[in-house]
Amino acid sequence: MPCVMEEMFVDVGIGVVGCGYWGPNLVRNLAQTRGAKLLACCDLETSRLDWVRQGYPAVKVTADFQELLGDKQIDAIAIATPISTHYALVKQALKAGKHVLVAKPLAQSVAECQELQALAVRNNCVLLVDHTFLYTGAVRKIKELMDAGDLGDIYYYDSVRINLGLFQHDTNVIWDLAPHDIAIMIHLLGMVPERVLAVGASHVNEQVENIAYVTMMFRERLLAHLHVNWLAPAKVRRTIIGGSKRMVVYDDMDMSEKVKIYDSGAKLSNDPAHIYRTMVEYRTGDMYAPKIDKTEALAEECRHFVACIRDGADPISGAVLATQVVGIIEAADRSLKMGGSMEHLHRPFVPEIAAAAAS
Amino acid sequence: MPCVMEEMFVDVGIGVVGCGYWGPNLVRNLAQTRGAKLLACCDLETSRLDWVRQGYPAVKVTADFQELLGDKQIDAIAIATPISTHYALVKQALKAGKHVLVAKPLAQSVAECQELQALAVRNNCVLLVDHTFLYTGAVRKIKELMDAGDLGDIYYYDSVRINLGLFQHDTNVIWDLAPHDIAIMIHLLGMVPERVLAVGASHVNEQVENIAYVTMMFRERLLAHLHVNWLAPAKVRRTIIGGSKRMVVYDDMDMSEKVKIYDSGAKLSNDPAHIYRTMVEYRTGDMYAPKIDKTEALAEECRHFVACIRDGADPISGAVLATQVVGIIEAADRSLKMGGSMEHLHRPFVPEIAAAAAS
Amino acid sequence: MPCVMEEMFVDVGIGVVGCGYWGPNLVRNLAQTRGAKLLACCDLETSRLDWVRQGYPAVKVTADFQELLGDKQIDAIAIATPISTHYALVKQALKAGKHVLVAKPLAQSVAECQELQALAVRNNCVLLVDHTFLYTGAVRKIKELMDAGDLGDIYYYDSVRINLGLFQHDTNVIWDLAPHDIAIMIHLLGMVPERVLAVGASHVNEQVENIAYVTMMFRERLLAHLHVNWLAPAKVRRTIIGGSKRMVVYDDMDMSEKVKIYDSGAKLSNDPAHIYRTMVEYRTGDMYAPKIDKTEALAEECRHFVACIRDGADPISGAVLATQVVGIIEAADRSLKMGGSMEHLHRPFVPEIAAAAAS
Amino acid sequence: MPCVMEEMFVDVGIGVVGCGYWGPNLVRNLAQTRGAKLLACCDLETSRLDWVRQGYPAVKVTADFQELLGDKQIDAIAIATPISTHYALVKQALKAGKHVLVAKPLAQSVAECQELQALAVRNNCVLLVDHTFLYTGAVRKIKELMDAGDLGDIYYYDSVRINLGLFQHDTNVIWDLAPHDIAIMIHLLGMVPERVLAVGASHVNEQVENIAYVTMMFRERLLAHLHVNWLAPAKVRRTIIGGSKRMVVYDDMDMSEKVKIYDSGAKLSNDPAHIYRTMVEYRTGDMYAPKIDKTEALAEECRHFVACIRDGADPISGAVLATQVVGIIEAADRSLKMGGSMEHLHRPFVPEIAAAAAS
Repeated sequence: MPCVMEEMFVDVGIGVVGCGYWGPNLVRNLAQTRGAKLLACCDLETSRLDWVRQGYPAVKVTADFQELLGDKQIDAIAIATPISTHYALVKQALKAGKHVLVAKPLAQSVAECQELQALAVRNNCVLLVDHTFLYTGAVRKIKELMDAGDLGDIYYYDSVRINLGLFQHDTNVIWDLAPHDIAIMIHLLGMVPERVLAVGASHVNEQVENIAYVTMMFRERLLAHLHVNWLAPAKVRRTIIGGSKRMVVYDDMDMSEKVKIYDSGAKLSNDPAHIYRTMVEYRTGDMYAPKIDKTEALAEECRHFVACIRDGADPISGAVLATQVVGIIEAADRSLKMGGSMEHLHRPFVPEIAAAAAS
Repeated sequence: MPCVMEEMFVDVGIGVVGCGYWGPNLVRNLAQTRGAKLLACCDLETSRLDWVRQGYPAVKVTADFQELLGDKQIDAIAIATPISTHYALVKQALKAGKHVLVAKPLAQSVAECQELQALAVRNNCVLLVDHTFLYTGAVRKIKELMDAGDLGDIYYYDSVRINLGLFQHDTNVIWDLAPHDIAIMIHLLGMVPERVLAVGASHVNEQVENIAYVTMMFRERLLAHLHVNWLAPAKVRRTIIGGSKRMVVYDDMDMSEKVKIYDSGAKLSNDPAHIYRTMVEYRTGDMYAPKIDKTEALAEECRHFVACIRDGADPISGAVLATQVVGIIEAADRSLKMGGSMEHLHRPFVPEIAAAAAS
Repeated sequence: MPCVMEEMFVDVGIGVVGCGYWGPNLVRNLAQTRGAKLLACCDLETSRLDWVRQGYPAVKVTADFQELLGDKQIDAIAIATPISTHYALVKQALKAGKHVLVAKPLAQSVAECQELQALAVRNNCVLLVDHTFLYTGAVRKIKELMDAGDLGDIYYYDSVRINLGLFQHDTNVIWDLAPHDIAIMIHLLGMVPERVLAVGASHVNEQVENIAYVTMMFRERLLAHLHVNWLAPAKVRRTIIGGSKRMVVYDDMDMSEKVKIYDSGAKLSNDPAHIYRTMVEYRTGDMYAPKIDKTEALAEECRHFVACIRDGADPISGAVLATQVVGIIEAADRSLKMGGSMEHLHRPFVPEIAAAAAS
Repeated sequence: MPCVMEEMFVDVGIGVVGCGYWGPNLVRNLAQTRGAKLLACCDLETSRLDWVRQGYPAVKVTADFQELLGDKQIDAIAIATPISTHYALVKQALKAGKHVLVAKPLAQSVAECQELQALAVRNNCVLLVDHTFLYTGAVRKIKELMDAGDLGDIYYYDSVRINLGLFQHDTNVIWDLAPHDIAIMIHLLGMVPERVLAVGASHVNEQVENIAYVTMMFRERLLAHLHVNWLAPAKVRRTIIGGSKRMVVYDDMDMSEKVKIYDSGAKLSNDPAHIYRTMVEYRTGDMYAPKIDKTEALAEECRHFVACIRDGADPISGAVLATQVVGIIEAADRSLKMGGSMEHLHRPFVPEIAAAAAS
């Protein structure tokens, strides 16, 4: 990082809204991001503001969001509030000319997302959505491999994100967990699906699906599938990307080998003996597990946010990608409610697809 | 097993048809099954008959299936030939009054299955389909737990059966791999789904799907899902059964803990701090991994086959279950070809469902 | 925790010495420990003090240790400096009447440890050594099981702590890694070994052993063994405790099942067939993996430190245990230098053993 | 394999002695080894001979070992009897001019081994000891890597072979389990240790140690260590070989990645921050898991036995290696009985070391 250059700038003043379950991570990281200065924290609960006071006595605390908007020293606002509040808060922040880093998903509809996106462009503000996984060493490594064409043609993208979670009343498992995988998927593939189909069920809270299977069809033969589940006995976070040359297994629970790259070597054969031999084999090629950078993803993301503000660069997880994520979630949720209907993604989507592919 | 009683019987004379990739396992096990006597092996390839000659010099070898049918000493025939030949061979064997053990799936359509089923009943022959997994210590242990109600209400059944397989020209991945999981599922749940939906893709051989996702809806809120894949980099054989009281993870690749039983304990909460804490936890209850009987499943199955012949008992993996498996596969394949249509299972199915539930 | 009562107290004023690689964890935890107030940080490197300034603007920073000793508001000092400095710093702090939390090991010889221990007693100061693992949910759970006698007679204690570490010039792998396991072992067994034997080798730095095997003999048939290694390709942190009734596997790298409890069921037999069956089995009893509390160990320890100061309680990881750890390390190092001699532990040790067993 | 050439030979006639727990594997493999013909089986227990009769009706069965020795058609004898009988049976077989394949260990003392070795040489008989692991795909792959120098200088060889086994009255855990690892170690390193030290304990059967740690010192800085245990809750079969360039982890329980090769990259550093970063990393280099040949080791070994008989080649696991194994076991057992004395290996050993290194 070009420190010298940075020293020439004044630090970017930052305010955080929402110091609940995810907010503290933003606070901790922003407080240590070079080039940024954490100035204020806002939350409606006093206990959380006390937590800030204790750990960060120099940071101003308030229960009034308007204070942050009115503060000239605050250039950017990081929002970690419930999903249902994102649209309103981001809108006000952008209108006040603040750069915004907001928790995923950006908003609850493509329409809202597109309005916020347009607003950010008009006011020349950076709008970065906190799709944290895009900044992990694992995803960055896989992106590198795929951009280099090491996997060959991509055949399928299979993701499982399940654990024994808690139930939220305002959102189902798709809105809660799927944004992670869909953002990673769009980022890695550089395109969005044409059709979405989802099935699921509610077992504990009638109104809220706690398990869902989302299938996404892309042009040609590329198929993507996602299993999200709040009622799984053990935590699984595994993505398999199948390519004509190589295949990747990204297991976020594997501390020592998060990313494994396998030689594919699928062969056609009719020799039953040969078939039998293969059936009992566990894999048929070599495997390679590259060293993965262990830097905290959120620290990486905060650095990126500051860099975008300074250099006016496009965020890796900007409004275009975030809108595509919400568009897919919307469609998946519609299909889920229809018991598994095939949903085609809206056309207005297309230019953004191009944009995404280009970016 | 009451050996003394057994001695009172003459051994069941057995002939094996098909000594290719699976046949040798049948030969090896039947040669050692108490109460059975392996008399003859039939195959069209001389090399395979040579293999039999070398290992089992006392066993008669022939390339002519009719010889077996004509042999009065042969009471039962074990068939391990390609799927497309099952119907014809089983039919001839049953018509010749032979008991039959045949590789899965029983046949290529429900119609064929029902005809064979009727024929077996009419000729008072045992018709056992080689759904080997039903005889493993793991599945027997899970069945025991579920029959005792230890899991509570069953919420979902999720199965993944993937590996880097070889491509067959006469069948797709659903017909090849799904019968295993569907048979286990019906056996454990004691009922069959009402609707089936499948999506998939062909990447190597245009006509043959190498990846597929099959969703099965049961009455009420029970959801089942199956991922079968010939193009996966590593072998995965994992079934998760979610219940209101407990959950089971059956990982057939885990040599030391094939079956894990977790306390569920899903809770509703709105406390974001609590939610956060849970998000970072890997599981929220105790886990228990019972000792699993390691007896070879096929040995167990061969004993069961002989016992059914002697006692006239209903096979665990008889024609009813086998027909249900084929019915579901048929529907899944239809849905797959239609690109994900919702297929309702045929009515004639219903009585059998009852039968299955009863058995 | 009885908050009300707590409110009656003034917070314990705390200063931290050494903000290098481990210090920041102490700073972060002490800043959030109820009943404690982080007042000052001391380090010789400006860059580290800057890190404190940025994250904790309210905390006083200084390069002069004496400032902390002179500060009347500071009741306790947490020390996270290189091993070679522990003795001198702890001595000064205790002489100044400060309670002390110091990184492990307490000092570099039993003589030093006993002097510090006596000094703490004389000045009525709490002296807690940062054997962090004793405060993990895993070790607390195992302690609970063993104290309840669930394991039966303890047969052996086997620990492996290896990884690809970096080389330090002032200490070998035994002084670096063994204190963790030896502290856990003494804590769990409630006694210390009678004899120690160690072998090892230096491969990179002639003076510094990077691999070592330490064997410890207890009275009767209890055997303990430790493998510490800086040159292992992958990180292993696994302890096996063998008992007559049950056995425990504590794998600190296993995120979902850190502690596994197995039924032992060792049997005597001469039946070769039986032997064969066992040889091919992976385990012979049931396994149980209890839920483990995920609270950060250091947070637990800081709470305990404050509680000891207030209630005058004996620290779980106090001077007695810490001295025993150093005594064993000393003996092991002697044996290592002699190429594997059998070292008997000093007699003055005995009373402390009793004390440890009692505590 | 040059079949044509083979066809020119008459098959090697083979008799098997001992059809107990390991014998059946020999019978099964020898019955299918090209170039060999299984002619007779000998055992004192009728039930085992019945097993042979049923599975291999063409094979002659007898309870009289002399019959095999007298049978002109029998060129070679495979012995799978209790350790205590090896010496006498091998001696008689070699005197009768039969080639011998015998279960490990070859005999119960170096003296016996050397006598049998001399006898084999004198009678120009092949004497192959069944150190099966040397013929596994995993060990063959590692041997290939080490012979190519891919690991650089070898620093240490660490092996763990533990499980919940059954207790035998005639031998302790070292005699039972250690021969496997010691044979693999000598085979891979191409040399034997100079000194051996062992400690252990008896917990169930006073006379028989059920846990032992064996340390072996080679010239220079090469250190080897072995943990064998009959009272471990779960099966562990893991060998770590540390080299200056690369390190190998050979985990025989890992079905998909038995052999992992890690870049070593050990570095010297004093930067505490850097040290901290490394402490929290799980490994610091790339990892590579080559495809492993899954052929059954015993099948490979039987082929090798026949090839040695035909080509007069030196067996991979011949008398030299087998004698070294017994020599090390003897020394380890002596040390064990002395409570951890340092045992120097006998000089007569030296020439064989050279031989082994050469081979």
